[in-house]
Amino acid sequence: MAKTNPGRFFEDYTIGETIHHAVPRTVSGGERALYHALYPARHALYSSDEFARNCGLSASPLDDIAAFHVVFGKTVPDISLNALANLGYAEGRWLKPVWPGDTIRSTSEVIGVKQNSNGKSGVVWVRTRGMNQHDDVVLEYVRWAMVRKRDVDAPAPETVIPDLAKVVASKDLVVPEGLDFTDYDFTLAGEPHRWGDYEVCEVIDHVDGVTVEEAEHMMATRLWQNTAKVHFDATLREDGQRLIYGGHVISMARTLSFNGLANAQIVAGLNGGTHANPCYSGDTIKVWSEVLDKAETAAPGVGALRLRLVATKGGEPFTLKGDDGKYLPHVMLDLDYWALMPM
Amino acid sequence: MAKTNPGRFFEDYTIGETIHHAVPRTVSGGERALYHALYPARHALYSSDEFARNCGLSASPLDDIAAFHVVFGKTVPDISLNALANLGYAEGRWLKPVWPGDTIRSTSEVIGVKQNSNGKSGVVWVRTRGMNQHDDVVLEYVRWAMVRKRDVDAPAPETVIPDLAKVVASKDLVVPEGLDFTDYDFTLAGEPHRWGDYEVCEVIDHVDGVTVEEAEHMMATRLWQNTAKVHFDATLREDGQRLIYGGHVISMARTLSFNGLANAQIVAGLNGGTHANPCYSGDTIKVWSEVLDKAETAAPGVGALRLRLVATKGGEPFTLKGDDGKYLPHVMLDLDYWALMPM
Amino acid sequence: MAKTNPGRFFEDYTIGETIHHAVPRTVSGGERALYHALYPARHALYSSDEFARNCGLSASPLDDIAAFHVVFGKTVPDISLNALANLGYAEGRWLKPVWPGDTIRSTSEVIGVKQNSNGKSGVVWVRTRGMNQHDDVVLEYVRWAMVRKRDVDAPAPETVIPDLAKVVASKDLVVPEGLDFTDYDFTLAGEPHRWGDYEVCEVIDHVDGVTVEEAEHMMATRLWQNTAKVHFDATLREDGQRLIYGGHVISMARTLSFNGLANAQIVAGLNGGTHANPCYSGDTIKVWSEVLDKAETAAPGVGALRLRLVATKGGEPFTLKGDDGKYLPHVMLDLDYWALMPM
Repeated sequence: MAKTNPGRFFEDYTIGETIHHAVPRTVSGGERALYHALYPARHALYSSDEFARNCGLSASPLDDIAAFHVVFGKTVPDISLNALANLGYAEGRWLKPVWPGDTIRSTSEVIGVKQNSNGKSGVVWVRTRGMNQHDDVVLEYVRWAMVRKRDVDAPAPETVIPDLAKVVASKDLVVPEGLDFTDYDFTLAGEPHRWGDYEVCEVIDHVDGVTVEEAEHMMATRLWQNTAKVHFDATLREDGQRLIYGGHVISMARTLSFNGLANAQIVAGLNGGTHANPCYSGDTIKVWSEVLDKAETAAPGVGALRLRLVATKGGEPFTLKGDDGKYLPHVMLDLDYWALMPM
Repeated sequence: MAKTNPGRFFEDYTIGETIHHAVPRTVSGGERALYHALYPARHALYSSDEFARNCGLSASPLDDIAAFHVVFGKTVPDISLNALANLGYAEGRWLKPVWPGDTIRSTSEVIGVKQNSNGKSGVVWVRTRGMNQHDDVVLEYVRWAMVRKRDVDAPAPETVIPDLAKVVASKDLVVPEGLDFTDYDFTLAGEPHRWGDYEVCEVIDHVDGVTVEEAEHMMATRLWQNTAKVHFDATLREDGQRLIYGGHVISMARTLSFNGLANAQIVAGLNGGTHANPCYSGDTIKVWSEVLDKAETAAPGVGALRLRLVATKGGEPFTLKGDDGKYLPHVMLDLDYWALMPM
Repeated sequence: MAKTNPGRFFEDYTIGETIHHAVPRTVSGGERALYHALYPARHALYSSDEFARNCGLSASPLDDIAAFHVVFGKTVPDISLNALANLGYAEGRWLKPVWPGDTIRSTSEVIGVKQNSNGKSGVVWVRTRGMNQHDDVVLEYVRWAMVRKRDVDAPAPETVIPDLAKVVASKDLVVPEGLDFTDYDFTLAGEPHRWGDYEVCEVIDHVDGVTVEEAEHMMATRLWQNTAKVHFDATLREDGQRLIYGGHVISMARTLSFNGLANAQIVAGLNGGTHANPCYSGDTIKVWSEVLDKAETAAPGVGALRLRLVATKGGEPFTLKGDDGKYLPHVMLDLDYWALMPM
């Protein structure tokens, strides 16, 4: 039994340490097809090599959120196996597209620790990076999680709380090399709305809903080699429910937002995100968005839109928090990201 | 909310108009693997590159019905989002194989409109074409659907009912370039029965049954980027049922017909088809076929068989319609197609 | 109806006959992606082309158990369509990796027959071989099954019981050409435990559990073109249960054993195996292993570990059989195999 991985506990994290996560992964057209089977993914840049070439890329890359899952999944055995909650994300940036044939691995640098006052757990902040086979960083983001202590009597570490940006500055967003939206085909993309058609504070009800199934979320979660047992083992909880991987809700929400944001092709920055309430099989996911900010980029015809993406299980669209400032029970995800779209 | 696609209504269709459907799609070995996971697909030409080469092709193409789904799926946001019923198909022909790496897009030409007497809806006929990245038409077919009106007071258009062939003439079938069945390997294909062994009026009970699941039909329908919400959202109907995409039944029926029609390798023509009754999760699909006609082709060793393919949820095989001329309640699909097989 | 395949019955097998199974299959990155979606597959050699190259291979091959399924699936229509039970495996050896792009077909040689005393069925032994497009044997194994007779009055054949090795001798294991574990990266592989760290009689509880779903086992079973109807048709049994393909349990067990055996990268030999009790949707599979033997190989840095792999539906780990010598009811699989790992 000594050979199985018990995961890390709060006292196992040291500021400045870099954890090299296991199981690199080569992606192919198989991952793309599965992403399209598991989610209603329709953004043309990730569906068609021809469309991507017309936008200056050499081929259609792996969906940005799929790339996120590949990088994130590797961190689970080292970061979240004993986590009580995944608390937040910040400073996420997609730095290079992931192409079919690329091999991705991940590292996480411990940048913050803070023991909880109850002495039983603490918060750990890590900056995770995904690298391809050329050692290029394809994605980086900070996340923090509440992690159990193995030994409640272990001494509390010195508290270090990282100074994180509330929002990735638009000037720090990285546009994929060669991207050019000046010949963008709005008809093939599916909607006529360009960057200039969106206004800050505008809200969009994406209308469609998807009822989620056990087989689907487990297949998705395994595809990214996320091994957290709460997603797979129905005997762990008294109610026999499997907790759905929060990333499954992110992907479902992002792809459902196509209807109204079909031209928000590329996810370039992750400003923040909260998994407000859990998702279970049988829930019907609906989605709305709010335009939070707009920015130009140096790339030809490419603008950036900062968006709030909210996934709910029913409830009124555009409702988020109650008078007490807490998320309403039907809100599952509140994500804040930057998308690139044609100007 | 103005940014989401409400779909087209009956009064939005004009005779002669060509609709360019969105979201082109590049297919790969991923789509092939998923097709084999979602359906009991065993036709050797679509399973083995070596078998396909032995039949004169350069590699194994995407399954013909999968190609149909890719083309059809793109039309849904423009044609069937407000459809009350998908009424029929005609004049379908597969003109070029779809190879892994091909990028497919679709257009539909409006060729018929007829307002219903109730003034609330009408029938729209479109001729849909799927094109690859070389602008070659890979597939064309006519379908018609009953579509709601947005405004019941909108004036009725002049009725145009297209003159459609009851059957694709065998001389109009297109055999894939290079196809040659003279060295056909019946052992590897799985059955000894050649074109000459089938007789008109012969019926075949394909014996096997498959009980369908929510996760499977949703994955299949999403894979083809068919976004019709009735397939995904269990909250739309009082009974909580999701209506299964008719194409899922077509694929299940065609692949189940392998047992008795293993050598009916290629689907070359679609003469007609009716989704007689809906399919829901939990239904067990069984299939029978009837030989309707036979024809020779100019290609070496290649014959054509016109087949009726009937999918049922239980019930006696070989029963189709009641004394009233209506489909019996257990009949879900009645499809009329041309297959190519070794002579 | 004469055209459908009724399967072979006991009296249809003749000693020395070689059956050429139908439907060759070309595999791609699609099969790899699906294997990772259907099972918690994490062995690095099958996940990363870069990791495989660092171990002396040209790329990441198809998972060995997936290769087994491809070969096995083809045999079902000829061997197990009328089988009452799949009784055992022996003398299994993986002889060549299966690479993406390879086309696999199977043959089975009848090497044993023994009619049961009740005269209604008998045991058939076959030696199955999987070949690639170069006619190289990639895998061979013996299995035996109890098969119904078509005609109980058919005369009993002369009994031939093959003399099968209890264990594949370690000197007969075939190491993939070029395999070299001297630069093996234990960090990327996920665990530090090398061949020398495992002791004979050591047992490992792999801890994690997976609750299985109908959609998943059907997709897996179809992917390997296994057509046995008991896996798909819920109307065949009074309880409406579909019997899960034993190979699904093998794959789930092998991939769950990653946690504790992450470096047991390659399955090289199959000594034996028993499907002790059936698996149904809703069962939660847990797994434990026992080290049965150790051996060196001639390849640089490569050792062999003989392992017992036991899949259970709950119950105490490390329990296998009752006082009566019979498998306990919670034991589903008892597999005996050789794995290759870094020394």
